[in-house]
Amino acid sequence: MGNSYGKIFKLTTFGESHGASIGGIIDGCPSGIKIDLEYVQNQLDRRRPGQSKVTSERNELDRVEILSGIFNGISTGTPIGFIIKNKDQKSNDYSNLEKSFRPSHADFTYSKKYINRDFRGGGRSSARETACRVVGGSIAQQVLNIIGVEIFAYVSSVGSIHLNKSYNNLDLASIDDNIIRCPDADISKLMIELIERMKNSGDTIGGVISCVVKGVPIGIGEPVFDKLHAEIAKGMLSINAVKGFKIGFENVDISSSVGSQVNDIILNSSGKTKTNFSGGIQGGISNGNDIYCETSFKPVATLMINQQSINSKGEKIMLKAKGRHDSCVVPRAVPIVESMMALTILDLYLISKSNKI
Amino acid sequence: MGNSYGKIFKLTTFGESHGASIGGIIDGCPSGIKIDLEYVQNQLDRRRPGQSKVTSERNELDRVEILSGIFNGISTGTPIGFIIKNKDQKSNDYSNLEKSFRPSHADFTYSKKYINRDFRGGGRSSARETACRVVGGSIAQQVLNIIGVEIFAYVSSVGSIHLNKSYNNLDLASIDDNIIRCPDADISKLMIELIERMKNSGDTIGGVISCVVKGVPIGIGEPVFDKLHAEIAKGMLSINAVKGFKIGFENVDISSSVGSQVNDIILNSSGKTKTNFSGGIQGGISNGNDIYCETSFKPVATLMINQQSINSKGEKIMLKAKGRHDSCVVPRAVPIVESMMALTILDLYLISKSNKI
Amino acid sequence: MGNSYGKIFKLTTFGESHGASIGGIIDGCPSGIKIDLEYVQNQLDRRRPGQSKVTSERNELDRVEILSGIFNGISTGTPIGFIIKNKDQKSNDYSNLEKSFRPSHADFTYSKKYINRDFRGGGRSSARETACRVVGGSIAQQVLNIIGVEIFAYVSSVGSIHLNKSYNNLDLASIDDNIIRCPDADISKLMIELIERMKNSGDTIGGVISCVVKGVPIGIGEPVFDKLHAEIAKGMLSINAVKGFKIGFENVDISSSVGSQVNDIILNSSGKTKTNFSGGIQGGISNGNDIYCETSFKPVATLMINQQSINSKGEKIMLKAKGRHDSCVVPRAVPIVESMMALTILDLYLISKSNKI
Amino acid sequence: MGNSYGKIFKLTTFGESHGASIGGIIDGCPSGIKIDLEYVQNQLDRRRPGQSKVTSERNELDRVEILSGIFNGISTGTPIGFIIKNKDQKSNDYSNLEKSFRPSHADFTYSKKYINRDFRGGGRSSARETACRVVGGSIAQQVLNIIGVEIFAYVSSVGSIHLNKSYNNLDLASIDDNIIRCPDADISKLMIELIERMKNSGDTIGGVISCVVKGVPIGIGEPVFDKLHAEIAKGMLSINAVKGFKIGFENVDISSSVGSQVNDIILNSSGKTKTNFSGGIQGGISNGNDIYCETSFKPVATLMINQQSINSKGEKIMLKAKGRHDSCVVPRAVPIVESMMALTILDLYLISKSNKI
Repeated sequence: MGNSYGKIFKLTTFGESHGASIGGIIDGCPSGIKIDLEYVQNQLDRRRPGQSKVTSERNELDRVEILSGIFNGISTGTPIGFIIKNKDQKSNDYSNLEKSFRPSHADFTYSKKYINRDFRGGGRSSARETACRVVGGSIAQQVLNIIGVEIFAYVSSVGSIHLNKSYNNLDLASIDDNIIRCPDADISKLMIELIERMKNSGDTIGGVISCVVKGVPIGIGEPVFDKLHAEIAKGMLSINAVKGFKIGFENVDISSSVGSQVNDIILNSSGKTKTNFSGGIQGGISNGNDIYCETSFKPVATLMINQQSINSKGEKIMLKAKGRHDSCVVPRAVPIVESMMALTILDLYLISKSNKI
Repeated sequence: MGNSYGKIFKLTTFGESHGASIGGIIDGCPSGIKIDLEYVQNQLDRRRPGQSKVTSERNELDRVEILSGIFNGISTGTPIGFIIKNKDQKSNDYSNLEKSFRPSHADFTYSKKYINRDFRGGGRSSARETACRVVGGSIAQQVLNIIGVEIFAYVSSVGSIHLNKSYNNLDLASIDDNIIRCPDADISKLMIELIERMKNSGDTIGGVISCVVKGVPIGIGEPVFDKLHAEIAKGMLSINAVKGFKIGFENVDISSSVGSQVNDIILNSSGKTKTNFSGGIQGGISNGNDIYCETSFKPVATLMINQQSINSKGEKIMLKAKGRHDSCVVPRAVPIVESMMALTILDLYLISKSNKI
Repeated sequence: MGNSYGKIFKLTTFGESHGASIGGIIDGCPSGIKIDLEYVQNQLDRRRPGQSKVTSERNELDRVEILSGIFNGISTGTPIGFIIKNKDQKSNDYSNLEKSFRPSHADFTYSKKYINRDFRGGGRSSARETACRVVGGSIAQQVLNIIGVEIFAYVSSVGSIHLNKSYNNLDLASIDDNIIRCPDADISKLMIELIERMKNSGDTIGGVISCVVKGVPIGIGEPVFDKLHAEIAKGMLSINAVKGFKIGFENVDISSSVGSQVNDIILNSSGKTKTNFSGGIQGGISNGNDIYCETSFKPVATLMINQQSINSKGEKIMLKAKGRHDSCVVPRAVPIVESMMALTILDLYLISKSNKI
Repeated sequence: MGNSYGKIFKLTTFGESHGASIGGIIDGCPSGIKIDLEYVQNQLDRRRPGQSKVTSERNELDRVEILSGIFNGISTGTPIGFIIKNKDQKSNDYSNLEKSFRPSHADFTYSKKYINRDFRGGGRSSARETACRVVGGSIAQQVLNIIGVEIFAYVSSVGSIHLNKSYNNLDLASIDDNIIRCPDADISKLMIELIERMKNSGDTIGGVISCVVKGVPIGIGEPVFDKLHAEIAKGMLSINAVKGFKIGFENVDISSSVGSQVNDIILNSSGKTKTNFSGGIQGGISNGNDIYCETSFKPVATLMINQQSINSKGEKIMLKAKGRHDSCVVPRAVPIVESMMALTILDLYLISKSNKI
């Protein structure tokens, strides 16, 4: 259970880190959409390990193979099945995981929840599964493009280095100009230095990804429970290592705000507001302004330094990671955040078509 | 759409602020559970307006009437239907809302999403609907009690007044000892003073509610999408005025943490960890430690001071609230947070019964 | 679980036969629809007991009270909550059911499935709950009317008395001209006589209801699993006492047909076919021709003659019904069949809006 | 939409008849189940074309490849991804389908519902997708075996040749003793002769598959909408070419029955009934007796004789099938019926675990 996302545009995924392949099914993609597979591959390349010095060295090429649902380059409205073969697996690096539980990983909980566990590389709990989200999300983005929706995610914090600028003052076209995916040349250098310092010490660091969505039609989101920002929050928190979420309130603390400072004055009948503390959503429904949110990632749990833990017999052990790991997850997580945003907005957009006859 | 919460233990609600009544249906409540309606009423009383000087003066008694699904005081496994009649409505206070859109409220978005809007008191977008969540949640809590789960929510911030203590050092039995529901006598006084100051100025202030859950069995949560903390996040963000969420990392910033400081060392085969930065969840699955999360509320959007806005013709207007409103929502939101937590955990607990034959 | 019907236009119901009230919530009704409550009441009146000599004498007036979701007579897009109070309960007639299990009733299975059972009048398993389906269905019908869909159900068999005519040769406007709801004056007389004979003997008899739907747009139904006729079948089989279902093949045996006789030749680009053995659906998708199906009801299980059974201790007992019961359920079930059809088609119609951008 | 089946044990499928491969994902399979892939393959072999003289000659070997969710031969509780490569495609046989609509096929409806259609071999509407149901169903059957549930399907009618015996008087172990899968040597010969006669004439014939389920625990099924037989009906009607369904009433007409003859007398506290007209289900809940149902298949729509139709321009054309087709679908549909039954019962069994704490 729990491996499907969305009600109408629904992505279901499968696959373990070191199995034959990972993959998924997109059910509910509207028909007649020209699908650019190069764009899908490009998003996968932005997520894949081994792409730069600030990411894991595991070298997965992550070629997606589409098995159905696209005919002559155009979606047919039937399910889009796809697989990504696992190639550069070094299961030996993980053989010690068979009987040991890494701190702040899911080894212990999977072991207890399920009777039989594929321990190799973390199995299903590995962030490798997020490649399938990127396939689904990058197809969703192409559907959204047709209705004028554009999604931009970028790294806004690494450790205590924060990009304290509003997205309105950033060049969102420059996000990929550096390997950290922060659209500010100076801040990005500091972030890269910090990650390299963490890498050298064998330690890891957290970060924040901001996401801006432009062009969302007014009326998306289904209160009272399936509010747009509640669904976005779920999507983001479902990404590996995410522990926090904020909608609106860009660079502002929510709880210490006072109403007269953060209420968004409506300027005209298009719904345009003077400020956008609401982050483009009021009462759980998009209001036509840009959607803005921040997603916080904890430091990667896999350290290249010794840590105490236990094995499956409950005995104390010392663990030190082998293999190739990220010191900070946010540069690679940018397309994943974009994908979860695209999946969420497209699904609720399609649902909103039933609000009126 | 969007008015149901949960897959197995499912709450569906209806009702507008100034309609005949609000109410709901709980489908999937296990049979044979003794239901204490006084506990339900007590939770409603903790949520209701007019309960203290820090809350709105609207005086709703909020008597729940159970219409089905409980026979001789015990759940029958069939749907529990309930209503709460609306009584102390002063619709005249809201007559000016027919054609005007309040800043940072849902008037504009509801008006655009739907063709016909019940504007009285905010209609469906009013936080009045959360009373139905409390009915559902307080029944869920009684089911959870049977398996040993206990939920404690409390106010940990009002404005910039923070309770900088770990819940481990608080007396959770003392939460209701003051009207702010902060289990620290000194801090709560400061919070009350701040809220009264806001009230006198006609302005409003945000806050944070912390929630601790003890006794959750290992294995609750359905990765990869329906992770326990992702579902909790959705539940919390679906509450009116909530804009932020954090799992674990109590009183600690997520993104500036380093791995070696926040990894939770597993001490023994019960899964007990030395620290609990994970907030009781790893890989989206409960690990047997306490669940801990923080939910951030923005300041109430209704101000007793003049604000610029537009009317339904797009003309500029000045608005000043009539009626009776909260200056800070967190004291009354404590049972709502508890309720969303109970609904989420119980639903995923029931689903987890299918993990093994 | 199991008390919701539909994905987008979703009806959830509650209530026991002898509780305070029954009721439900319609979530996902499009906004801006003028709702004629007299039509709803009229459909309830066609279903209610005590309406004629061929129905039970229980005299429930079944007044529906709308509690939300309709404002100034027009749907608001928010949930429509409603209740129907239970009035003419004679629980004493059923006191013997507390510890006894009636043959071919749900007393035994409810007793085993759930720990605590409201035995009065069959509790939740009573066909009384179908009144809530009629409320939901008659609102769905009003939405469907806007897009030109019309639904006609009528009794086509009682016992071995069959109406062997195609609906094309019947006056569907005359269905309510007789109390049996069969649009053929001669056949209806025979049916009424048969039911009266059964009533006098204390026995009961089965029947068939045919349903025709005109004006369904091409393209409704979601293969491969949620095919239009598969969803209709589920809806019909979920009605109390229904045991069989057939799509198309009007007055023709399915399995003994040969392809060259029952293939429907397409005549022109509107999709109009020469014959309509397909019943308006091909590949699970409406093809623009009339939808036609037959639903078979078993004889009512409650007999006014002695039957052997067991009590809750497993002891043999003799049972004879008290109370007021139908000898044949089909006359009253006509609006229920219409309602399940309306709920099913409207839900899939709304879903189909997402097939294209 | 519509390509998932089940709520907890959920099968999602993809794939067109002549694409790269078909496949699916099983989400919610309990962990710790030993999976016999030979059994899966054996069920696929019973479904595949080319297996005998009464089936199509298309020679698909249908080798299933499991990609995830099974580790060391045992289910892990994570999604089971699988593919079946398409091999013996003769797309040229279908090139004429690009612009023509076959009578009583889904060419017309798919063409209208979706903007872009994979016409080759019927694309998604081909019964080839049922191979994926067999993979899911044969894994479900293995889970059910553990709790003692056994499923038997067999051909009970071909055309007007009926097996007029109760399953109680048949040797269900002999179903595969003949190529028609009817457990009666004499009747099966007549059926084979009839099919061969149809084949020689280029025509096709309908049939009925009966299904018996033994060992179902009491309490499966979720009224009022998700009644066990309603869900079974949906599952069966979702199979290609199925047009009718009956629960219980073995070899008996439903509507002409009288209550005193078909009420099932309960004999003892195990729920055992004297007769089983209810087909093992009362009030939508299994009662511990054998489940029995009949599913009716129309004649195959593809004929080897000339038929009139239209092309995509609306012009009249004459069509005659090329390729390799079945004259009667029921022999190959036996494992499909078993699979839909297994999927339905297992899903509702897992849901029923939440009825009690």
